[in-house]
Amino acid sequence: MAPGDSKIDVLIVGAGPAGLMAATWMARCGIRARIIDKRGTKIFNGQADGLQCRTLEIFDSFGFADRVWKESNHMLEICLWNPDADGNIRRSDRIPDTIPKISRFQQVVLHQGRIERFFLDSLKEHSDITVERGVLPEALIFDESLAEDVDTYPIDVTLQHLSEEELNPDQSQATNGTAKSDGLFRSNISADDTDDLLNRASQNAKTGTRETIKAKYMIGCDGAHSWTRRQLGYKLEGEQTDYVWGVLDIIPITDFPDIRMRCAIHSASSGSVMVIPRENKLVRLYIQMTTTERGGGKLDRSNITPQMILECAQKTIAPYKITYDYCDWWTAYQIGQRVGSEFSKNERIFLAGDAVHTHSPKAGQGMNVSMQDAYNLGWKIASVLNGTANRSILKTYQSERRRIAQDLIAFDHKFSRLFSGRPAKDVMDEAGISMEEFKDAFEKGNMFASGVAVNYGASVIVAKDGDAAEQGDGTDVSVKNPNGARVIGNAKLARNIKTGMRMPSFQVLNQADARPWQFQEMLKSDGRWRIVVFAGDVANASQMKRIKNLGSSLAAKDSFLYRFTPPGTSIDSIIEILTIHSSPRSETELFDFPDIFHPYSEKEGWDYWKVYVDDMSYHEGHGHAYENYGVDPGKGCLVVLRPDQYVGWIGEIEDVAEIARYFEGFMVQRT
Amino acid sequence: MAPGDSKIDVLIVGAGPAGLMAATWMARCGIRARIIDKRGTKIFNGQADGLQCRTLEIFDSFGFADRVWKESNHMLEICLWNPDADGNIRRSDRIPDTIPKISRFQQVVLHQGRIERFFLDSLKEHSDITVERGVLPEALIFDESLAEDVDTYPIDVTLQHLSEEELNPDQSQATNGTAKSDGLFRSNISADDTDDLLNRASQNAKTGTRETIKAKYMIGCDGAHSWTRRQLGYKLEGEQTDYVWGVLDIIPITDFPDIRMRCAIHSASSGSVMVIPRENKLVRLYIQMTTTERGGGKLDRSNITPQMILECAQKTIAPYKITYDYCDWWTAYQIGQRVGSEFSKNERIFLAGDAVHTHSPKAGQGMNVSMQDAYNLGWKIASVLNGTANRSILKTYQSERRRIAQDLIAFDHKFSRLFSGRPAKDVMDEAGISMEEFKDAFEKGNMFASGVAVNYGASVIVAKDGDAAEQGDGTDVSVKNPNGARVIGNAKLARNIKTGMRMPSFQVLNQADARPWQFQEMLKSDGRWRIVVFAGDVANASQMKRIKNLGSSLAAKDSFLYRFTPPGTSIDSIIEILTIHSSPRSETELFDFPDIFHPYSEKEGWDYWKVYVDDMSYHEGHGHAYENYGVDPGKGCLVVLRPDQYVGWIGEIEDVAEIARYFEGFMVQRT
Repeated sequence: MAPGDSKIDVLIVGAGPAGLMAATWMARCGIRARIIDKRGTKIFNGQADGLQCRTLEIFDSFGFADRVWKESNHMLEICLWNPDADGNIRRSDRIPDTIPKISRFQQVVLHQGRIERFFLDSLKEHSDITVERGVLPEALIFDESLAEDVDTYPIDVTLQHLSEEELNPDQSQATNGTAKSDGLFRSNISADDTDDLLNRASQNAKTGTRETIKAKYMIGCDGAHSWTRRQLGYKLEGEQTDYVWGVLDIIPITDFPDIRMRCAIHSASSGSVMVIPRENKLVRLYIQMTTTERGGGKLDRSNITPQMILECAQKTIAPYKITYDYCDWWTAYQIGQRVGSEFSKNERIFLAGDAVHTHSPKAGQGMNVSMQDAYNLGWKIASVLNGTANRSILKTYQSERRRIAQDLIAFDHKFSRLFSGRPAKDVMDEAGISMEEFKDAFEKGNMFASGVAVNYGASVIVAKDGDAAEQGDGTDVSVKNPNGARVIGNAKLARNIKTGMRMPSFQVLNQADARPWQFQEMLKSDGRWRIVVFAGDVANASQMKRIKNLGSSLAAKDSFLYRFTPPGTSIDSIIEILTIHSSPRSETELFDFPDIFHPYSEKEGWDYWKVYVDDMSYHEGHGHAYENYGVDPGKGCLVVLRPDQYVGWIGEIEDVAEIARYFEGFMVQRT
Repeated sequence: MAPGDSKIDVLIVGAGPAGLMAATWMARCGIRARIIDKRGTKIFNGQADGLQCRTLEIFDSFGFADRVWKESNHMLEICLWNPDADGNIRRSDRIPDTIPKISRFQQVVLHQGRIERFFLDSLKEHSDITVERGVLPEALIFDESLAEDVDTYPIDVTLQHLSEEELNPDQSQATNGTAKSDGLFRSNISADDTDDLLNRASQNAKTGTRETIKAKYMIGCDGAHSWTRRQLGYKLEGEQTDYVWGVLDIIPITDFPDIRMRCAIHSASSGSVMVIPRENKLVRLYIQMTTTERGGGKLDRSNITPQMILECAQKTIAPYKITYDYCDWWTAYQIGQRVGSEFSKNERIFLAGDAVHTHSPKAGQGMNVSMQDAYNLGWKIASVLNGTANRSILKTYQSERRRIAQDLIAFDHKFSRLFSGRPAKDVMDEAGISMEEFKDAFEKGNMFASGVAVNYGASVIVAKDGDAAEQGDGTDVSVKNPNGARVIGNAKLARNIKTGMRMPSFQVLNQADARPWQFQEMLKSDGRWRIVVFAGDVANASQMKRIKNLGSSLAAKDSFLYRFTPPGTSIDSIIEILTIHSSPRSETELFDFPDIFHPYSEKEGWDYWKVYVDDMSYHEGHGHAYENYGVDPGKGCLVVLRPDQYVGWIGEIEDVAEIARYFEGFMVQRT
């Protein structure tokens, strides 16, 4: 999508992580989109940094988790430091940072600027979408009457292309070890950011002008002060706390033994420090500024200096010493805990990320939840625009993600209070925080903070039992199935695959070449739905007969596969079938399986990348996928996955008619 | 190093994999180098493709193995197909392609054009060395009398910068499914190659002119028809065989069940096919062209067409069918098996790669051995230029690598004969090849073909027993130690670490942050020597006392560490100390170890990346490094590693004087 087209399908406002995630979906699904940002450049350091294991899974589905994994600092262990009986801090506990076995990735830390770089590189590789910088939205007109007519452009936006002078010129190098706090200074810019800086001025031929464009959809990813949200008149609901925190990104010079561990340090009476070791020898310190107290007057944050923050840290960490020669970034903030009242206007204009939730940064959630908002939304908009799905799926965005934001704020309330509070002197000290309670909360919080615990409620695309409104944020996303009873599925066929949660990943082998893969690696974010056929033990003749029957049903010219696939496109272009069987690999041949499980193309022959086996690998052990997924090899099952890897439906090998009814609930028939 | 400087340290002729490997060392060691190539562009497909696990280890030491690992096809299983009693081919065996546990990588396949891309990107990231294309060497004058005077420039080379017209203009798109066989056509150029193509014409302002430059060293990586070799009057010794083979890179359309496995197919009387599955759905077929026979007249290869090659394959593979719609590249070749008579002229001009060895491509060795020549050579030249080592180490290049080339040709003789021959009809058929013998050779060949079996002979930099000339190619590289007896080391202290072989890799944890690493990941190719301190069980007080004593010896201002390190540079800039201990991680602190094991810097505090522990990780199991390395935790040992990860010396914790003597054999004292 070249900048400058006046009619587009999707306008994305804001090129932070949420906006870039939305643009990435559009790139992968071939949607005409523009993405604008009022800043003149991307950011280069500081800002958000923590990445959940779920976020890495998502990055992997777009093909760049490896870059993050390589550059980031991996978080392995949390050390809790607390006052002993004499009031001196000592290490009281070690706990794993990421709960073992919940994901094939662990939590890592890498600054937002690098994450944005990977998104930008990925956009360049897969599309002609480029971020238009120095572009400010000025006016929004929305014609609500056109909202339900899929082919219309109900959104008019006027864009102002800022001149060089209007862009923030404050880009000078920090001096005397005092880094700027806006994340824009250039002390440690990576080589692959250089081109962007050089091209900044020349990128936009429209500098200093205005244009008005028409859009079918619009996504406001424009941060806590969201212009888009203000145009819609929506509120962030919640409150500002009075806890004031300072943040320092430094290369520490210290004798504190756990400086390369994630640490929560509570001193007896000199506040708290959270230590987050980072990439490039950096360590981030979150420091409670003890000069303010709950209920006190509003602190003037402009008076806070890095030196003040450092001194607070030094008091907490005493008798250990800490100082620095190099500071990469710093800031001071107060915690606000708020959720947007609405996440969309008529399912045409959407809000995502900080525009609809703000909270404490210390649990490393913000950038993750923001990106995951856009990850939830992007494929839905693309599916409607591509003609795959009808508009009913769009309501699930608010239902699914506003509920997550609410849960996050509840988590953050508890976590911040525990972290900001003073340690209890003894069990009678009710105003203090029990360190046992803190450890317990930390451990429980880890599951939430991993991102893999997300469990979307029942809806038109999540076939499970229970009340749809209760399981979401209250939005009505219940199933309006024209063909009879609600589709529920049969969840017990796969004990460890949960409808509404993301598909877990275990190792399987490609039947055709014996290569081990994490099964999740097959679930690329390309907009396709998937049916995973757990074919079971196909060496058993009666089981193989069931699989052959399934193949015949799916290959029938009136099957739902053909009905939902546009004529002239390959049969796996809307719904892909992936098979995992459990018979010995060397006693099974790819050609034993029905053709539809490994479709033939006149140009490229058979497809060798769709049939997998749960067997021993030569170099990487046995994935025990059937055992880990909780599927009986003698029985097998079918699992439907949404384009975002979340489980939509689980049923029997014979339940083809039921899958068809599931898809009929929201898919558009093409033949 | 900007193109155009008339005095340089190193001139590299040829920008194929060997030349790029040499340039990469110069980039990492800060050497002023130029690299020229007569071709107008890099190649984009075809050519060599197989990568040994050792080659991946080397790539990882430069930081780009991950790109290869991600893009390549991984080779897991070899299927042997042979005639049954009725003369029909059937799968007779499955064997693992890479022998389990010999490396953390397995053999993979990726075409040479991508490998060159990764080298070019790495050069760009780490230096200003760029390949000067369309540049032909015309004249070479070498002043032998200056050879041993380290600071001189004994080499004069005249370079011709070709005009656009002189460059091969044959770059048109292949048509009718008939790909060109020169590897230069552009049907599937990757996005990141595009810039190079666009900039091709403008890259060289000297187009159409000549220049003469002076160099200290020169490396001829200019292929089987090496111009450099011809200037020196050296010969390739050996013979041309009459086996003629065709190669097709196609997307196969076939019912052959093992097309995604590496296969050796011997038909009863219709020749042999080797199947090499590749990236991007491609499969390479090596096909014996049965129209020629040993002793027949020389085949005119210009008459061979892809159709002829395909028809041969079809006969071998019958009754299975194979054809294609897309052919990416093809060629036909005869096997020559030759080794260069000399690998260097006065250790000032060196030859590497195809310039000094040619052989059959089917075992996937060529590109690997060529790159490993340059990998062996590059750091040695850089060390002499940097003032770290004296010129005595340069003789070990020929001693080590010419011996490898000789071994390779011996391997290739045997392998080619087995592969090109007709299967024996029965045990009485002495002219035929026994399939048992073939399988046996295949399995044994796999160890050789992995690249990890390389075992360099005794020399000034390999402290082990035995006759230096016998263990190498005959070159005299024996130790001229000015300080007494030859240094031999005490190899039995580490059962599975072999002096002269590359350091094996097992998982260890960083003491400071609990992160698991393959130990080899610490051994970056940056020109540094390393001493690995197997500190053993430091929870034992007497063992810890030995370690403290070692620390004191190393930290003494007259220790070899200080003597060989230039004043004003960090103490780990020439020789880095890495420690692996075996006590429980959580009962050990980094600060328990002597300071010299984790040096302090005034700018960056303590070094947290030098002390490791053999303990259980949270997510990736236990590396059992002591057990796997064969080191007694109660005793420990010291291991010296060369900059290329090969083991130079093994000894006791107390053998500091002996290490000093080892280094004194070739290192230059700086203080």
